[in-house]
Amino acid sequence: MAARLLPLELIDKCIGSRLWIIMKGDKELVGTLRGFDDYVNMVLDDVTEYEVDADGTKRRIQLDQILLNGNNVAMLVPGGSPEDT
Amino acid sequence: MAARLLPLELIDKCIGSRLWIIMKGDKELVGTLRGFDDYVNMVLDDVTEYEVDADGTKRRIQLDQILLNGNNVAMLVPGGSPEDT
Amino acid sequence: MAARLLPLELIDKCIGSRLWIIMKGDKELVGTLRGFDDYVNMVLDDVTEYEVDADGTKRRIQLDQILLNGNNVAMLVPGGSPEDT
Amino acid sequence: MAARLLPLELIDKCIGSRLWIIMKGDKELVGTLRGFDDYVNMVLDDVTEYEVDADGTKRRIQLDQILLNGNNVAMLVPGGSPEDT
Amino acid sequence: MAARLLPLELIDKCIGSRLWIIMKGDKELVGTLRGFDDYVNMVLDDVTEYEVDADGTKRRIQLDQILLNGNNVAMLVPGGSPEDT
Amino acid sequence: MAARLLPLELIDKCIGSRLWIIMKGDKELVGTLRGFDDYVNMVLDDVTEYEVDADGTKRRIQLDQILLNGNNVAMLVPGGSPEDT
Amino acid sequence: MAARLLPLELIDKCIGSRLWIIMKGDKELVGTLRGFDDYVNMVLDDVTEYEVDADGTKRRIQLDQILLNGNNVAMLVPGGSPEDT
Repeated sequence: MAARLLPLELIDKCIGSRLWIIMKGDKELVGTLRGFDDYVNMVLDDVTEYEVDADGTKRRIQLDQILLNGNNVAMLVPGGSPEDT
Repeated sequence: MAARLLPLELIDKCIGSRLWIIMKGDKELVGTLRGFDDYVNMVLDDVTEYEVDADGTKRRIQLDQILLNGNNVAMLVPGGSPEDT
Repeated sequence: MAARLLPLELIDKCIGSRLWIIMKGDKELVGTLRGFDDYVNMVLDDVTEYEVDADGTKRRIQLDQILLNGNNVAMLVPGGSPEDT
Repeated sequence: MAARLLPLELIDKCIGSRLWIIMKGDKELVGTLRGFDDYVNMVLDDVTEYEVDADGTKRRIQLDQILLNGNNVAMLVPGGSPEDT
Repeated sequence: MAARLLPLELIDKCIGSRLWIIMKGDKELVGTLRGFDDYVNMVLDDVTEYEVDADGTKRRIQLDQILLNGNNVAMLVPGGSPEDT
Repeated sequence: MAARLLPLELIDKCIGSRLWIIMKGDKELVGTLRGFDDYVNMVLDDVTEYEVDADGTKRRIQLDQILLNGNNVAMLVPGGSPEDT
Repeated sequence: MAARLLPLELIDKCIGSRLWIIMKGDKELVGTLRGFDDYVNMVLDDVTEYEVDADGTKRRIQLDQILLNGNNVAMLVPGGSPEDT
């Protein structure tokens, strides 16, 4: 059986790697994790933000570095990307 | 009468087993529980995510490993699956 | 006059008994209470979940054992059931 | 001038008496207060629940004993009832 | 310049006086303040509740004494009334 | 470079001055700040409240003194007014 | 690999620099960061506020200095601006 893995341990393992972040609502991002705090607020580099406008068109926005409020994060997928699905 | 079972005790018994997670809203997931914290944030492996789109079509998405924010979890069903109902 | 009864005392008296749980929104459940914590998260056995779909049809789902997030519980009715009303 | 009366003091005076509870949203209840905690979760006996369905019809449901989550309580009216207005 | 006045100091000065309470949403009340706690839950006497129904008709409801949950209070106006505007 | 200025320091500097308060939603107010607490609940004198009704008409309401719940404040603009824009 | 960077460390590095702030909902701002607290409430100078009205028209509002409630901040982009995308 795989060893037990706590949530913050998993995030810590993702430092320096690509992380797919699925927000509550339709917004998704992929970026390289630089740091995080206990509330899962995250510093991310080389970020691609995927937005779906009201009329369904998909937009990609490139951002060098962001601080993301962890409050609206629904799910983290280490190494994943919406482009995989 | 069955012995008393506390919520976190039940989740602890599920480590390494399949767990059906019903979120507030329409989203459901099944995965193998690797770990969790006091807020029921959960690390899950071999995850199938069940989504119902606006027009009612059901989508399944396979994800190797995720960290799920416990904030939006409505219910956990040990060993269950939406495919059972 | 009936003796004073604190909320957590009442729930404690329900351990091992049938409990009707009315959620915020339309969802209701009946199950046997196995355990609970200070946030009224509850472990329930032999659960019947009553759902009303968007078109008004009533669905019953049977679940062996669940952990219910207490956050969305509106009301508990010891020994009651939606089938009584 | 009437003496100062703190919120929890007022509720305490209502133990054993009829209490009209107005929830956020359209739901109202009347019951005999058996106990409460600091979050104004309340144990109530001989409860009448007043609901207004989507099409405006008023329903009354009788419940022997309930535990009401204080989180959604908007207002308490000692000795009052929606039947008075 | 008028002296500094802290929020709880202002409410304390209102004990025994008429207070206009504007809730989030359309509900407003006027009553005599009997007591309050740190969450601005308030005990009010001789209360007039002003409600606007869905079709715009204004209703006044008289209540002898209430406990109002401070959670939904938007604004307090010492000595004021919606009848002034 | 301008010196560092902490949020509560900025509010403290506004005591006795006019303050434009923009709420979540469409409501805005201007008033003279008399006092505040750590939750940015505020005592304001000589208040003008700007409301936009459902049909777009703008209403101004004058209030001598209010206590404003800081919970719904989106933004404070020292010395500003909606009349400036 | 880039060094670890904690969220509050990143914000601290932005003192005196331009910061693009994306709020939950459609509102965005750019301003010079003067100070912040643990809740990411922020004092900003030379602020441009970008709003999209219901009918889609974009409005820019210039404000000398504001205190922004951190509660509704979704994302911070150091040195960025909506004019870049």
